[in-house]
Amino acid sequence: MNKLDYVVRQLARTKSKKYEQYVVTGIIHKLRHHDIKFVTQQYVLRSVALPDLLPDSEKKASYKRALTDLYFPALGIHIEVDEPFHEDKENVEKDKLRESDIVNATKHDILRVEIKDKTLKQIDERIDACVLKICEKFSKLSDFKPWNLEDEYSIKQHIDRGHINANDNVAFKLVVDACNCFGHNYKGYQQSTADHPHFSNISLWFPKLFENEDWSNTITDDEKIIKEYAKDDTKRQAHFDSCIADKRNKRIVFAKAKDNLGMLLYRFKGLYELNIERSREKNMIIWERIATEVDTFPEATPKLD
Amino acid sequence: MNKLDYVVRQLARTKSKKYEQYVVTGIIHKLRHHDIKFVTQQYVLRSVALPDLLPDSEKKASYKRALTDLYFPALGIHIEVDEPFHEDKENVEKDKLRESDIVNATKHDILRVEIKDKTLKQIDERIDACVLKICEKFSKLSDFKPWNLEDEYSIKQHIDRGHINANDNVAFKLVVDACNCFGHNYKGYQQSTADHPHFSNISLWFPKLFENEDWSNTITDDEKIIKEYAKDDTKRQAHFDSCIADKRNKRIVFAKAKDNLGMLLYRFKGLYELNIERSREKNMIIWERIATEVDTFPEATPKLD
Repeated sequence: MNKLDYVVRQLARTKSKKYEQYVVTGIIHKLRHHDIKFVTQQYVLRSVALPDLLPDSEKKASYKRALTDLYFPALGIHIEVDEPFHEDKENVEKDKLRESDIVNATKHDILRVEIKDKTLKQIDERIDACVLKICEKFSKLSDFKPWNLEDEYSIKQHIDRGHINANDNVAFKLVVDACNCFGHNYKGYQQSTADHPHFSNISLWFPKLFENEDWSNTITDDEKIIKEYAKDDTKRQAHFDSCIADKRNKRIVFAKAKDNLGMLLYRFKGLYELNIERSREKNMIIWERIATEVDTFPEATPKLD
Repeated sequence: MNKLDYVVRQLARTKSKKYEQYVVTGIIHKLRHHDIKFVTQQYVLRSVALPDLLPDSEKKASYKRALTDLYFPALGIHIEVDEPFHEDKENVEKDKLRESDIVNATKHDILRVEIKDKTLKQIDERIDACVLKICEKFSKLSDFKPWNLEDEYSIKQHIDRGHINANDNVAFKLVVDACNCFGHNYKGYQQSTADHPHFSNISLWFPKLFENEDWSNTITDDEKIIKEYAKDDTKRQAHFDSCIADKRNKRIVFAKAKDNLGMLLYRFKGLYELNIERSREKNMIIWERIATEVDTFPEATPKLD
């Protein structure tokens, strides 16, 4: 897939909502900066405004999953088109959401484009205002790297940086790439877990974080808790016991998901630790997030044998 | 329907072909001149290049029906996007073509946008070249009238001009409007023929020029001949005889068709004359076009009785 294919496929996804199509294509054509990657219809996790009436002591962050119409990953900017009489996106899309890649947008800018009671001229002006905002934020970036389809999922950038952070929305196309970010030098790797070359109590895990044929896995909306159990009753206890007994009580988690063009990817979620007490209480394995940033490691010297 | 609705509905029609969508939305956003009307996926009649080897004496104009991706009626400009591996439009669309409105594009400019082996940058440059061509042709128009959805089908302009010409692609939304262009002052009119207030041997005719429940009507691709007969055998001879006997042996023809958003309209095709000899020969009514321009008439003084 080259940039042309990518761009036209992304724009073709806006077809079901005609106002959204007008705004999204307008921003892309007026911006016309093909070194800035964009994604249409991106599922995001974002914080929800809390009721002002709550006393501070009772306030805790609340999150929800939503869909934004246009997303610029390098800029952390989302565009949302408020179609008149549009269906409730959050309800309609729940089925698709299950397997979909979700990026953390809690610190991103959301630009809204209202359609209702607006003229074509007013919408054009709003398109221009969005483009201006994008250009302003772009001009302030100190470390912008032109979008390149060939190496955007390469691991070198992450090894050079020395860490990966879930808030940077890091993803890989292949399990082997995630493994090699921690010092492996695999040529290929297909399994759903791997050892961490540097820590005997950490494993790398590539789960589907939704119910599937074998596993009932879920992640909470705030991504702080992962629950896991085997659906097959005959295997459930054995899996539970082996997890509890395993010395590797921490997992670096990459959620297996489909991006918005249907391609598989593995999205970094953080470092999670087994909570034995709560697991026993709930009779399922409970993982709790203990870090959103972990260190990366350069390739270890190949063994000679 | 306002301009915003019109524009977004037109652009939403490009959804099946993703390169076409990119080019069409690019031209519309880069042009951003909402006083110039555009139509997506317009059926057109155009002349076909003739083989050079033919001696001049054997050359005669040849026409074909086709589909263009973007059409600017006021400018006579069409954009055609050559999608790679696209289906043969002329074959695929024959079914839809039957009832569709067809404009005469023989004297129009066709701008092609090649996609195969092109980069995004090259396509953007071609979009800009098309916009430039559109602006150039626009700047040379001496009688441009800003596009106005409310009065674009009004009859006043045609009465003021004193004639209508098939090469100007004149159409009406209502039969009554076509009637009143010739001096009627109907409030409403629903029938498929009407008298001409000024010529006793001319009638106004609003046929479906394709086979339908009652009538087998066809128009040739060059629009010079219309063939007509009743499908019901018991009525066929009576219809034939009454046509032959009718003193109104000429018809001003407005073809009933659907525009590309599915709205009915009546497209002026010309003045046709009954050819009795050929009709007898073929056992069906044969109308031959004798003029592409006819006079219009101001509203006659209302009768007082």
